[in-house]
Amino acid sequence: THSQTVESDERALLNVGESEGISFSKDSLFLMNLRFRMQNRAGFNTLEGDAFEVSEYEMRVRRLRLRFDGFVGNPRFQYYIQLAFSKADLDLETSLVAQPIRDAILYYFINENLYIGFGQSKLPGNRQRVISSGNLQFADRSTANAIFTLDRDFGFFLYKTIPFKNQSILQLKGVVSTGDGRNASAINDGLAYTGRIEYLPFGRFSNSGDYSEGDFEFEPKPKLALGLTLSENQKATRTGGQLGQELFDARNMNSFIVDGIYKHMGWAVMGEYLHRSSNDPITVDELGEIRYVLVGWGFNTQISKMLDRKNELAVRYANVTPNAQINQFQQRVDEALLGFTHYVNGHRIKIQANLGYKWLEGLAKFENTGNSWTGMFQVEFGI
Amino acid sequence: THSQTVESDERALLNVGESEGISFSKDSLFLMNLRFRMQNRAGFNTLEGDAFEVSEYEMRVRRLRLRFDGFVGNPRFQYYIQLAFSKADLDLETSLVAQPIRDAILYYFINENLYIGFGQSKLPGNRQRVISSGNLQFADRSTANAIFTLDRDFGFFLYKTIPFKNQSILQLKGVVSTGDGRNASAINDGLAYTGRIEYLPFGRFSNSGDYSEGDFEFEPKPKLALGLTLSENQKATRTGGQLGQELFDARNMNSFIVDGIYKHMGWAVMGEYLHRSSNDPITVDELGEIRYVLVGWGFNTQISKMLDRKNELAVRYANVTPNAQINQFQQRVDEALLGFTHYVNGHRIKIQANLGYKWLEGLAKFENTGNSWTGMFQVEFGI
Amino acid sequence: THSQTVESDERALLNVGESEGISFSKDSLFLMNLRFRMQNRAGFNTLEGDAFEVSEYEMRVRRLRLRFDGFVGNPRFQYYIQLAFSKADLDLETSLVAQPIRDAILYYFINENLYIGFGQSKLPGNRQRVISSGNLQFADRSTANAIFTLDRDFGFFLYKTIPFKNQSILQLKGVVSTGDGRNASAINDGLAYTGRIEYLPFGRFSNSGDYSEGDFEFEPKPKLALGLTLSENQKATRTGGQLGQELFDARNMNSFIVDGIYKHMGWAVMGEYLHRSSNDPITVDELGEIRYVLVGWGFNTQISKMLDRKNELAVRYANVTPNAQINQFQQRVDEALLGFTHYVNGHRIKIQANLGYKWLEGLAKFENTGNSWTGMFQVEFGI
Repeated sequence: THSQTVESDERALLNVGESEGISFSKDSLFLMNLRFRMQNRAGFNTLEGDAFEVSEYEMRVRRLRLRFDGFVGNPRFQYYIQLAFSKADLDLETSLVAQPIRDAILYYFINENLYIGFGQSKLPGNRQRVISSGNLQFADRSTANAIFTLDRDFGFFLYKTIPFKNQSILQLKGVVSTGDGRNASAINDGLAYTGRIEYLPFGRFSNSGDYSEGDFEFEPKPKLALGLTLSENQKATRTGGQLGQELFDARNMNSFIVDGIYKHMGWAVMGEYLHRSSNDPITVDELGEIRYVLVGWGFNTQISKMLDRKNELAVRYANVTPNAQINQFQQRVDEALLGFTHYVNGHRIKIQANLGYKWLEGLAKFENTGNSWTGMFQVEFGI
Repeated sequence: THSQTVESDERALLNVGESEGISFSKDSLFLMNLRFRMQNRAGFNTLEGDAFEVSEYEMRVRRLRLRFDGFVGNPRFQYYIQLAFSKADLDLETSLVAQPIRDAILYYFINENLYIGFGQSKLPGNRQRVISSGNLQFADRSTANAIFTLDRDFGFFLYKTIPFKNQSILQLKGVVSTGDGRNASAINDGLAYTGRIEYLPFGRFSNSGDYSEGDFEFEPKPKLALGLTLSENQKATRTGGQLGQELFDARNMNSFIVDGIYKHMGWAVMGEYLHRSSNDPITVDELGEIRYVLVGWGFNTQISKMLDRKNELAVRYANVTPNAQINQFQQRVDEALLGFTHYVNGHRIKIQANLGYKWLEGLAKFENTGNSWTGMFQVEFGI
Repeated sequence: THSQTVESDERALLNVGESEGISFSKDSLFLMNLRFRMQNRAGFNTLEGDAFEVSEYEMRVRRLRLRFDGFVGNPRFQYYIQLAFSKADLDLETSLVAQPIRDAILYYFINENLYIGFGQSKLPGNRQRVISSGNLQFADRSTANAIFTLDRDFGFFLYKTIPFKNQSILQLKGVVSTGDGRNASAINDGLAYTGRIEYLPFGRFSNSGDYSEGDFEFEPKPKLALGLTLSENQKATRTGGQLGQELFDARNMNSFIVDGIYKHMGWAVMGEYLHRSSNDPITVDELGEIRYVLVGWGFNTQISKMLDRKNELAVRYANVTPNAQINQFQQRVDEALLGFTHYVNGHRIKIQANLGYKWLEGLAKFENTGNSWTGMFQVEFGI
């Protein structure tokens, strides 16, 4: 294109592509990338572990997102906006307040290795949460993520990268945020403080693979990323801090997370452990109804192997164990999943099939009450 | 454009137009069409049939839609996404759960005459429902459509076209879907099964005119399309299957629909008959409140004539007759409308005026209680 | 660009820019401008006037908007659509019905000085309301605007400009609208009638500066605009007419507004007075609950000075005084604010800091109950 017009520097450029979305740009003055993606799925759940009778079909648009990002005036001043429209995306499965904004944040790049953000985005919590839902190898994140994740929040973000001479990398992330989750109204004077440290001993992953599941890149040399997050959420008002029903009183919560991911030659191993605590997790209203902070611990492990350049097999085992303080209200849950993914166009267009088994209170036998099977077929499509 | 640059194959192309929206493309690798349209209206309803006193003004944005469609990687793999933002579009006239997604579906074209879809879209039900709201000749669809349509659903779609040597065409459409309508959550194990057969004895209509009201194309030879739909909705949970309030218990429902459209030299005649049945349509909750399946039958007929290339006159007569099972709760409704449309830019930009009379229980006299007049001025504007 | 291709008239053009958004055009046949903007903020409120202890932090995406405007077929036929996605934008701070449509209106330009509109847009009420939230010099509009503004409505709009030989300009604006606010459903037969007259004795402001706060343009000669609005809202159903909770009965309301803005050499002075009246403002439901028309008067004055080409200092004093009819329910409120704005890229990208003090019932002393301080940091970012 450039060879064709000497004036190209003065013209706006349009680019489109299978894996880059649609971009509008003008030199180093302006860039907007426009993308969308959707996840359509059809699945089932059984009512029991020992009978394969379907209790319900889940068929729906799980996610539908529009994304705008780029810079204006100067590549140092960047923006990232993501809107979401499915019922689940809008939080309308569990609440009546539609929340289309997932991300709306501005970044200022002080230098190559240091930038700050102001707005709403994902907290630097457990790795699987920070991995985009477009880069997952199963249809959903783990049950441990569902209960203990830090999710998104609004605040001030700081990201610092420290590269070492031996190619290893240290990353520091710190956030002061509301602690009340996406699009929260002003509630009280309690904020949340989150810090994370990451270490990549063998250098960067290809194509930011430390935040993408599966080794689609077939890393020629072993790569490893380790992360540790601490978060204190003061006067939190929801059962999971940034997520969940409203508590009847505000509570302080502490989260501790460690996670890691390893990739090599088509193999990927990912693991994370999450822990949440609160001194007094149970809140009661005047009618005696109870709502409690989701205290306890959980973990998730996933191992996957690319069968060839297009197909992948993965297994997951995850667990949620509530603390003794709340285990009369909240059951222990274990889940095991087998997943197959056919990558039509990397993570942008892929077809997934999952088969899973879930059991309660650690009692894995098929005949135990509440245990169940789940199957899921999902197509991800995006630009 | 192409003559100008030999590299055109490698460049992204931008096209805009009065009737094509904005398109971004790159050879056979990428296409995205971006469109929007809105319908602004001002109308009135009277309280009585024999007094032209306005009881209420209806002035609002009836529809406001954004549409993205195209393909990625290969023209066989297409997508179609439509988002909707008006209060009525979001279902917020009748419910509290905002539903911005109207369509979100992927298609795979196996060959020219066979393709499958996975996602949320319109079921192949009555013709007027499947005709886009942007291609209607009255401001609203008929009262029969409102009560008996199959609307949209999420599932697996199959479309098969069989062209015959004499130019006639047979079309087969089959869908397995949730039966619970747009963006439904997982509810139970009941699905909906819909089949439709269409026959076009005199070949294709110009510009897909079998799914557009009015003969804007001035078909030089007579064209006819006939359709028949059968749908069984198992364990449906809403009064109209895919639409309506929640029932207190799930019910099986059966729909039978026949419809046809004829166009020639500016004349268009459209008719449809819809029938819904259910063995036990009435559900009761513990307080004795009643909600019932909308069983019964209805029809709609519309005749229109293009006065010249820009102006059209149309009449409608439609009826809804509830079954005896529910006619203590639901009245028979008849409506007659006169419509004038000025097409500024085909169906994309048009100005419409409707005058209608509605009567209850078959008692058409102006003085009967509940009968009323309605008038509507609407401007449709889109790209 | 044009010099480069003789076929440019037949090609679609793409333009992007720091202050023009993204535009797609084709000669005088088609234009679409695409813009977005967001306002991210972090602030605090104190509980008392004499203790600087924070009672709550307000940290959120206050506004996030997408805008599409342009023309199709002919520059006379224009459209303007604005969608909004933040919780506050969607009215979800105070109601459960999501309202993403802010503007959706069509304009027809009869001639250079006369055009009509049909759709949803801002009524020609108080100046600060009509000024885009992207062109404000404080983070929020005044407390007087919050209570007495006419806001947006759906209806028929007429705009007439009368230029005089001495460069002075008279503008007449008239609207017939529903009176029930954004995306209202059909309620009753009461409409709202709004008329406004504006006079610019010294001619047009640079860059439409009569509807932008602050003299960012450094007007070399003094400019002045004066406005007067009268509005009658018949059978209004909400406490503020187009805004507010639903009343228990419909009421007629009358609004009277005068405002003005003066700019010269970096100085800007703006003032507005708003008055609403209703014969019988109080409505009561069968349980004795009371909701009332917000009758009374308020004013807002702002004075600002550009310190240089990028930085501005501004002060505001505003007041709301309820009528005697309702002053047992509604308190008098006064607010004073100091604001600093750093314009990175005009009003499109700016950083703002506000410090304010609010007092009740005219009792300004810090120790009076209910008085409070507020601080706000806001970044506006848009294209």
